Amino acid sequence: MRPPENILEVLKNEDSFLILTHSTPDGDALGSSLALKFLLRELAKKAEIFTEQPIPSQYKFLPEIEKIKNIRELPLEAFKVLILVDCNNPSRVDNDKKLVEKIERFSGIKVIIDHHIEDKRGDFNAIKWIEPEEAATGIMIYKIIKAFGINLDYAMATALYTAIIIDTGNFQFDNTSEHVLTIAAELVRAGAKPSYIYEQSFESWSLNRFNLFVNMLTNVEITPPLAVGYLRKDDFEKTGTEESDTERFVEFLRTIKDVTIAALFREIEENFFKVSLRSKGSLDVNPIARAFGGGGHKNASGYRIRSSFEEAKNKLIEVLKSNQML
Amino acid sequence: MRPPENILEVLKNEDSFLILTHSTPDGDALGSSLALKFLLRELAKKAEIFTEQPIPSQYKFLPEIEKIKNIRELPLEAFKVLILVDCNNPSRVDNDKKLVEKIERFSGIKVIIDHHIEDKRGDFNAIKWIEPEEAATGIMIYKIIKAFGINLDYAMATALYTAIIIDTGNFQFDNTSEHVLTIAAELVRAGAKPSYIYEQSFESWSLNRFNLFVNMLTNVEITPPLAVGYLRKDDFEKTGTEESDTERFVEFLRTIKDVTIAALFREIEENFFKVSLRSKGSLDVNPIARAFGGGGHKNASGYRIRSSFEEAKNKLIEVLKSNQML
Repeated sequence: MRPPENILEVLKNEDSFLILTHSTPDGDALGSSLALKFLLRELAKKAEIFTEQPIPSQYKFLPEIEKIKNIRELPLEAFKVLILVDCNNPSRVDNDKKLVEKIERFSGIKVIIDHHIEDKRGDFNAIKWIEPEEAATGIMIYKIIKAFGINLDYAMATALYTAIIIDTGNFQFDNTSEHVLTIAAELVRAGAKPSYIYEQSFESWSLNRFNLFVNMLTNVEITPPLAVGYLRKDDFEKTGTEESDTERFVEFLRTIKDVTIAALFREIEENFFKVSLRSKGSLDVNPIARAFGGGGHKNASGYRIRSSFEEAKNKLIEVLKSNQML
Repeated sequence: MRPPENILEVLKNEDSFLILTHSTPDGDALGSSLALKFLLRELAKKAEIFTEQPIPSQYKFLPEIEKIKNIRELPLEAFKVLILVDCNNPSRVDNDKKLVEKIERFSGIKVIIDHHIEDKRGDFNAIKWIEPEEAATGIMIYKIIKAFGINLDYAMATALYTAIIIDTGNFQFDNTSEHVLTIAAELVRAGAKPSYIYEQSFESWSLNRFNLFVNMLTNVEITPPLAVGYLRKDDFEKTGTEESDTERFVEFLRTIKDVTIAALFREIEENFFKVSLRSKGSLDVNPIARAFGGGGHKNASGYRIRSSFEEAKNKLIEVLKSNQML
């Protein structure tokens, strides 16, 4: 779909934009935010991105990533427009409830550009463009740039290519379509370097992260079609890693032939887990995540749960069973 | 480049074609051979593929793979034209020297379609189309199909998409270009299913293979820029695996940021190792493998060595040092 006119109008008519995205920002969150900022600069607008810090190290190569500011020092009043990118509910922007409330009270124009399934809790009263059919928010930003007739430059192409490969698992997920590959080809023509971006995004694990991965693999419980990995607080401490270091860990569990559903439990606080779900093919894990108050996409969703690991795992198995997935 | 006229003429004018490829056939070898066979069938020609058996299990999903015959039962005299696909020297077709000599003596028309660097040993006296600049032989077959004005069907598209993702590491290697992504997009339009093909080709590890991988990771020695993995005979026996199960293991070691050279030692017989070398970017491991009597490409080479693991590892380190790579 073409970007809605009311969103294009806001971008055209207003002059100062605050760009926010979800916490633990990934390549689509960061790449989309950056590309939108580059577009707004081309349109001679003021635009700034604020996110949770630190930025995961694998994205340090992105053009102007160092100019992204800390969400904890958010000068909301300095902007006319707030744009939520790659997330559609302010509660996803940060774990600090007071900060989220402050964002919810933003009095200027609010815009949402996202490809996640709509989270209707609360009323943020924004101009929304939500397209769960799109593989990445980066593709929506690409369409906005096109709608303005702006030429893609190296920085935009690199940011958008990164967004796409992160959300398609470098063209391996079910969302990899003719449309996605055609846009990727155009981004390469505009200067994006596939092997360089791949190496930076996917082959830049710290030794600590590698050790955490080995830790997960040695403890994984495989009972096809399900594989369950878990990382306790202690595992993160022992290896000197953080939650953001687990990006793509759960995808690896899909490598096993008979595993069609993979779950990764990460203990963020004692007995509080962030859970990532992945599935193969037509299997839809989004309803499973929603049953726990989370959400996401068909093949990649997530939720949070406060309980012991054993209890959390058993609850997941229960819900999978009641959805005829086990 | 467009396919040479003399190759198109042979395909147009002759009526029976024997298609051969290299031993240990991979996705490009098999996908290209199949797509060429499908084209010849569209042109109402007789065409058959003969390869080394068994076909690796991850390629069993390819359309009509079961019709590929055993190279050891080759009825050379039954064909007017022999086409070597994804290899440019008959010595690469099989390890059996007598069989190779028989192929070399083939008295009909000989054609070579390949993207590897030309191996000039011997004189096979064939009509050649060799394009080392192409990412996959599959792209050359795609161009031949286009030159005939034939519509890509599901089977052709699936075979060619597989060829491309195997030789570009699913769009991660340096050979991933706008051209490659544009053709991939067209193959998807013609029916190729990216996530299905990826899953079949790359995510079909047995549980045994997964255990062998964990085994390698828990023993890997990382001293950046070098990472060394090793798998002893005992590791294969314990996990019920074979050497062929280690495909893509060494690539994984490149995931670590500061690792630019990865080596995997696999003990084939007691104190006899097959060694795979991988490098990132401009680092060339081919001279290293050649120093041990092996060879390969810039970023992927290999050799064999008879010694203890410690001695073999120390010799590799020595050679890397004397090549200023450590």
